[in-house]
Amino acid sequence: MDIIVLRQGATEEEIRHIVKRLESRGLKVNLSQGTERTIIGVIGDTSKVTEEEEDAIRAADGVENVVRILKPYKLASREFKKENTEISVGGTIVGGKKIPIMAGPCAVENRTILTGIAEKVQAAGASFLRGGAYKPRTSPYSFQGLGEEGLRYLAEAREKTGLPVVTEIMDPRDLDVIVQYCDIIQIGARNMQNFRLLLEVGSANKPVLLKRGLSSTIKEWLMSAEYIMSRGNHNVMLCERGIRTFETATRNTLDLSAVPVLKQLTHLPVVVDPSHGVGKRSLVAPMAKAAVAAGADALIIEVHTNPEEAMSDGEQSLKPEEFEKLIVELRPVAEAVGREI
Amino acid sequence: MDIIVLRQGATEEEIRHIVKRLESRGLKVNLSQGTERTIIGVIGDTSKVTEEEEDAIRAADGVENVVRILKPYKLASREFKKENTEISVGGTIVGGKKIPIMAGPCAVENRTILTGIAEKVQAAGASFLRGGAYKPRTSPYSFQGLGEEGLRYLAEAREKTGLPVVTEIMDPRDLDVIVQYCDIIQIGARNMQNFRLLLEVGSANKPVLLKRGLSSTIKEWLMSAEYIMSRGNHNVMLCERGIRTFETATRNTLDLSAVPVLKQLTHLPVVVDPSHGVGKRSLVAPMAKAAVAAGADALIIEVHTNPEEAMSDGEQSLKPEEFEKLIVELRPVAEAVGREI
Amino acid sequence: MDIIVLRQGATEEEIRHIVKRLESRGLKVNLSQGTERTIIGVIGDTSKVTEEEEDAIRAADGVENVVRILKPYKLASREFKKENTEISVGGTIVGGKKIPIMAGPCAVENRTILTGIAEKVQAAGASFLRGGAYKPRTSPYSFQGLGEEGLRYLAEAREKTGLPVVTEIMDPRDLDVIVQYCDIIQIGARNMQNFRLLLEVGSANKPVLLKRGLSSTIKEWLMSAEYIMSRGNHNVMLCERGIRTFETATRNTLDLSAVPVLKQLTHLPVVVDPSHGVGKRSLVAPMAKAAVAAGADALIIEVHTNPEEAMSDGEQSLKPEEFEKLIVELRPVAEAVGREI
Amino acid sequence: MDIIVLRQGATEEEIRHIVKRLESRGLKVNLSQGTERTIIGVIGDTSKVTEEEEDAIRAADGVENVVRILKPYKLASREFKKENTEISVGGTIVGGKKIPIMAGPCAVENRTILTGIAEKVQAAGASFLRGGAYKPRTSPYSFQGLGEEGLRYLAEAREKTGLPVVTEIMDPRDLDVIVQYCDIIQIGARNMQNFRLLLEVGSANKPVLLKRGLSSTIKEWLMSAEYIMSRGNHNVMLCERGIRTFETATRNTLDLSAVPVLKQLTHLPVVVDPSHGVGKRSLVAPMAKAAVAAGADALIIEVHTNPEEAMSDGEQSLKPEEFEKLIVELRPVAEAVGREI
Repeated sequence: MDIIVLRQGATEEEIRHIVKRLESRGLKVNLSQGTERTIIGVIGDTSKVTEEEEDAIRAADGVENVVRILKPYKLASREFKKENTEISVGGTIVGGKKIPIMAGPCAVENRTILTGIAEKVQAAGASFLRGGAYKPRTSPYSFQGLGEEGLRYLAEAREKTGLPVVTEIMDPRDLDVIVQYCDIIQIGARNMQNFRLLLEVGSANKPVLLKRGLSSTIKEWLMSAEYIMSRGNHNVMLCERGIRTFETATRNTLDLSAVPVLKQLTHLPVVVDPSHGVGKRSLVAPMAKAAVAAGADALIIEVHTNPEEAMSDGEQSLKPEEFEKLIVELRPVAEAVGREI
Repeated sequence: MDIIVLRQGATEEEIRHIVKRLESRGLKVNLSQGTERTIIGVIGDTSKVTEEEEDAIRAADGVENVVRILKPYKLASREFKKENTEISVGGTIVGGKKIPIMAGPCAVENRTILTGIAEKVQAAGASFLRGGAYKPRTSPYSFQGLGEEGLRYLAEAREKTGLPVVTEIMDPRDLDVIVQYCDIIQIGARNMQNFRLLLEVGSANKPVLLKRGLSSTIKEWLMSAEYIMSRGNHNVMLCERGIRTFETATRNTLDLSAVPVLKQLTHLPVVVDPSHGVGKRSLVAPMAKAAVAAGADALIIEVHTNPEEAMSDGEQSLKPEEFEKLIVELRPVAEAVGREI
Repeated sequence: MDIIVLRQGATEEEIRHIVKRLESRGLKVNLSQGTERTIIGVIGDTSKVTEEEEDAIRAADGVENVVRILKPYKLASREFKKENTEISVGGTIVGGKKIPIMAGPCAVENRTILTGIAEKVQAAGASFLRGGAYKPRTSPYSFQGLGEEGLRYLAEAREKTGLPVVTEIMDPRDLDVIVQYCDIIQIGARNMQNFRLLLEVGSANKPVLLKRGLSSTIKEWLMSAEYIMSRGNHNVMLCERGIRTFETATRNTLDLSAVPVLKQLTHLPVVVDPSHGVGKRSLVAPMAKAAVAAGADALIIEVHTNPEEAMSDGEQSLKPEEFEKLIVELRPVAEAVGREI
Repeated sequence: MDIIVLRQGATEEEIRHIVKRLESRGLKVNLSQGTERTIIGVIGDTSKVTEEEEDAIRAADGVENVVRILKPYKLASREFKKENTEISVGGTIVGGKKIPIMAGPCAVENRTILTGIAEKVQAAGASFLRGGAYKPRTSPYSFQGLGEEGLRYLAEAREKTGLPVVTEIMDPRDLDVIVQYCDIIQIGARNMQNFRLLLEVGSANKPVLLKRGLSSTIKEWLMSAEYIMSRGNHNVMLCERGIRTFETATRNTLDLSAVPVLKQLTHLPVVVDPSHGVGKRSLVAPMAKAAVAAGADALIIEVHTNPEEAMSDGEQSLKPEEFEKLIVELRPVAEAVGREI
């Protein structure tokens, strides 16, 4: 059901024109003529009304506004699938009672450092190893990642620790090589509306971690999940990582209310990245706990054995001992909300 | 210490002018002439440099930027007072290990409803009764609150339940009557930078709950606390209640990272208002838990016996049974982070 | 006409309840039962439905959303008054073909400086003198304005130059003294939702310049104008002065599209303040021209004979010769859009 | 020159560590020990200090903040190239005294409609034809563009009208085919930080129109231009098209102050897209005039012969007669600021 609000003074002619248009799409209309406005209620399966059609109606003479009532996403919606989606990766479930922790460095820097970190986070209780081989950097003069070499190091670290691997894709041309090495493909915040990339991973046979865009609404984010799912890949995890606001005390503003909002709107698992959300090491632990209390299904946390030497995001990376302490502190919080770490 | 960055090509004359100006204020300067920029480091107690002085330097010829290193607030800062401020109100401490809950309706509507709610929230475990007698409403045609009559009902409800009372002030002319009845004076989000009102409550002998402005940075918020404290009233609680962002799925975006940020910057207690933060009843409970996990010192929650008949904010008010359930669920979360409800 | 969207699965009972409620207010309803949602169209004068009533319906069981079609402001709307409001102040019209310029220092600092500036801006072609005697400053330690002394200097400067005077009010208790001296009362951005102050100036017999709040929507801004008008004072000018966004290259983001939006929604004159909008002297001139091209009815610009010694906002103040040059450059722009300076 | 601010109480050891680190990169340091903070001024060519290095220092113990003084972009900066860059496309200059207008439909829909529009906009005075063959759509179920077929129609329309063609690239794999047909490659807002795509067009021998990201700062935008330029393609035009804010009265908030800011920071031409900036047909004309008054070097405007039937963005497309009228009205505005259309 959609609603079309007509301008004050819309002519009979204009109204007839719109009604005819809708009826030609097999829809029924319900005219409500108020004292100040006329409103057209559209009855029938308006999901068949495309975005273009809606835009066209909005552009028609006499129309003041079109209010879309139905959600524009389907596969991602709770209405489509009532029960939570549980995604199994290498034997670990994301979206179940247990809250898995993904941890590791921002970027894969070299084999030794990566393995060192992987062993530490595994010992501390992490379930996944994160690490970027392809890095989206603001500056063309910055370290752009090791590429396939980095992927190989990730695979080696998985070999050693048994931890499945999460890594970011930036270019559809890298898909083949990335799927060869990783267990979860990450779509970064800057690529949340890189629609070609979404379609590409939608055809891959790997779970996807879809980060929220810096200034994306929850609805747009779900539409991007829908892009991936529309190609057949339904194993999508949504990762809140902070939005851009006017506040500068934190790197971004971690929107934890997105967690319960998403749990209502979608069946997909919700991951929280407190590291990017706040951008400062000392704030990661309280926000990780808050994320669990808010209902997050998983966490992704940056850990580095030597943050000061990290090639990116050292400022927000936990040291292994801090990470270990955090895991210990998270357990009772998880239990307090009926979950476990 | 402040830093003044000069424009590329600033003349000797311009530099001399600024240096002289600073030295006339008893400050020492440290000139760093780089290959591309000259920078003036200002040494001494630059807190004596007023905002005007700083603006003037920023406006001077040859100046590109002024970087203020020292915090512009003093009394509110952790540097000024290392240990947490604990504010005792009618025997209940705000800022201690125990997390008190403030609860009640958005607006005081009449004696019967208010007393009913007060008794329910007290039974459920609340420590304070909230309720507005003066209501800031977007529309002049909306219910503006009962005024002094509402204050009397609050006092009566306190009599019956023993719960100290939190209520909002909107006008300096109402201070005398408000302090007569209430235990904590609330400054609402829209008045966070109503500086005259801040000065007024700064002279009052009552604790103040200072809500964060809709689009106020944490720094501006602390400056508003400083306004109150500068008049001698050091009993200020800071209340996060959501900021304005582009997201429309929630009424505001509850910035929980403000909690740990504030715990670092200031000794003042931090309160979280999840009701206004999210604006939807079903999201209040998860965000209340998240607030506690993030380190909040107190919560303020809207409760109404009949949200549907509430004269404002019914949409975000918990029913008493929901509130009771929430308190029960909050206890283990508080314990998980070393606190108690 | 308002629209109430019911949740999927809303019961007959819930629907009946809402319908009854509306009918008891003398409204007619129009039920549209779609395949996925039921929608209630409300017919009749829904402007009688108060904000409280609307909130209550929104809070009712079974309701997903309430879409308000009618504008919540009346007196301020174009529908209420088709022709542009022209406000005459000391013989100068604001809202007519001619675009008057208001100019002067941010704050009144002393008699000599103010008179000097007043004479310069008058000579350059300004029609009003601006200057603050009561200053809203972020810090309690900053210069807060000269108070009544400042008002006297403004009145003296008017005496000398013939320029009517615009000055800011911060506290309802200052109204009597301010109206004695000034010609236009300014409500600053931080007080746009200081509703008590709005009501107070609504009873005054002086035109009001209402600045847009830092993060206020155009709708909220018009509601604040409605507050003033609801008390009988219909001489309100709306002043765009920049909104708060994530961008830090400018002090605020001057939302010039607000100008044509307002010209459609309201009959009130629209003023633009490029000085606060951008916060940097070198950006004032291009944005002043852009404001005129966008359809502004007046400009308000900060001018100081010695920006470097200004007690506030020196960084964004034009020097008199820059102001003079700007006026000259603005003339052809105004003519290009059918106006004059 | 960069500045490192140390935490209060940073140890000698920590300071030495940082100083050593900087000196090992061939930089000189200047220690300023204030009463409350120590500050390290870094002298030498700090542009050699990579982002990683800076992050590492920020992450080091004892460091409170790093203030970067030098701009992180070089090739795009005014310092690098003082005079305006003029980009010649098919004989038309972008960045010169004359302000060329790019016009056309949002999406290429079919040959007939496109040719029709192209002829109309050319007759009205446009210098370029815009039109998308690859469309970034929020929904996977929406029209995604005609692809190469669309490019062919664009080339045909160019043939007929002589207008060079601007079209969007979304995927690096489409570059070869796109450069074959178009004259200016557009990078859309959602791809402003699709760094792989930026590098790809950086190697192409075609001018690039780089739209500003929805929530990108001007600095990030210039960094994206730097990405393209770093690969050798210096023909980059920056296109302001509105940023995301809390305001919903317009589709985006057109940040016209970005125009004069950019004219100071960079030598690259600045284009304004009022159509996307406001999203409503009736607001396009005033904002187009304002853009010219603010100093824009070119405009890009959506025009459609039948907005109501447009497959996207009909709501914001001008009809040919409206476009023609706008061009006529723009001429005197351009002349008023020393330019021409």
